[in-house]
Amino acid sequence: MLAEMNVKDFLGKTASNDPVPGGGSIAALSASIAAALTEMVANLTIGKKKYVEVEEEMKEIAKVAATCRSKFVEDIDKDSDAFNEVMAAFKLPKETDEEKEKRKEAIQEGTKKASLVPLEVAKDAFKIMEMIEKVVVKGNQNAVTDGAVAAMMARTAVLSALYNVKINLGSIKDEAFVAKVTKEVTAIESKVEKVEKDILSKVVL
Amino acid sequence: MLAEMNVKDFLGKTASNDPVPGGGSIAALSASIAAALTEMVANLTIGKKKYVEVEEEMKEIAKVAATCRSKFVEDIDKDSDAFNEVMAAFKLPKETDEEKEKRKEAIQEGTKKASLVPLEVAKDAFKIMEMIEKVVVKGNQNAVTDGAVAAMMARTAVLSALYNVKINLGSIKDEAFVAKVTKEVTAIESKVEKVEKDILSKVVL
Repeated sequence: MLAEMNVKDFLGKTASNDPVPGGGSIAALSASIAAALTEMVANLTIGKKKYVEVEEEMKEIAKVAATCRSKFVEDIDKDSDAFNEVMAAFKLPKETDEEKEKRKEAIQEGTKKASLVPLEVAKDAFKIMEMIEKVVVKGNQNAVTDGAVAAMMARTAVLSALYNVKINLGSIKDEAFVAKVTKEVTAIESKVEKVEKDILSKVVL
Repeated sequence: MLAEMNVKDFLGKTASNDPVPGGGSIAALSASIAAALTEMVANLTIGKKKYVEVEEEMKEIAKVAATCRSKFVEDIDKDSDAFNEVMAAFKLPKETDEEKEKRKEAIQEGTKKASLVPLEVAKDAFKIMEMIEKVVVKGNQNAVTDGAVAAMMARTAVLSALYNVKINLGSIKDEAFVAKVTKEVTAIESKVEKVEKDILSKVVL
């Protein structure tokens, strides 16, 4: 499991000419960092007298963010696995017509999956921005810059994941699938930068 | 050393109510990811017939990016250490006037350092964007989205680091120091978003 490597080695593996982990896994990592920072701000708010009014809300955020973090950590591998599946499909035998057909189908199926994994990461990372706004506005103001960093990591996770969706869509022949996914991509893409800017505008230093 | 923790545990420690690693260390991590992806695109370009003309340039980029990556990995700890130093200064004895004075000085010195560490990360992360543009434009186009992700991670590293500079500046009494650093912050801040957008505009999917 990639997330069980130490940070240094994980970065070394990213840097190597092995295509995984690549941008898709990094998108998931970025999302998991955003979730972790959100959790941290909530945790630094819980138990503080000054913030007693938001105590319950912060406890809920810490809980949800922890679940998201674990999920994104799994997505780091899920994305690399999906990429490896496509690569494996390309290596299938292509001697007979039947083999050729089977290989083509496997590539198409694999590529669809390789676009759906980052699409889900993008959607989920976009969703946690709501929580990030809450910790920035209502959480411990000593940790407000950590909330700001969370917002930027989430935005980067969303856009990075969407790049990985789009590059895969380019090789998918199923037009209905491409149209449906493109619509979802565009919807998130058109909103994420504004959501980030809105959160950052609420960071008071 | 934080970078020697496994990714999962590092994220768990980030999420905890321990303030380190916080946004500053995450900025350095984000920069090291950007460097790693830059290196990866260069490595996926080297040795490919189609890209023989940029072979030497890519070898140079891979080398420089590797050095930057190692440096940023060290910065993950450097930032947390600087934060811990400030915390330690706050805990110094403050019974006598002499102790009070000494404590105040230690806090000021520590806070200056805690602003200079992320300032350096911001500057260095901004610098690598030049290399990122090169791999996006001239590197293996199969890995162009990895270059796009690198650009966004570098931008996020820069801005995250600058937030950490600014929050520290708020507690520094040395006006000349604050003015000088603020000038540097503003200079980078005013350029980084445009540089990111420029790189992304060169990503052809």
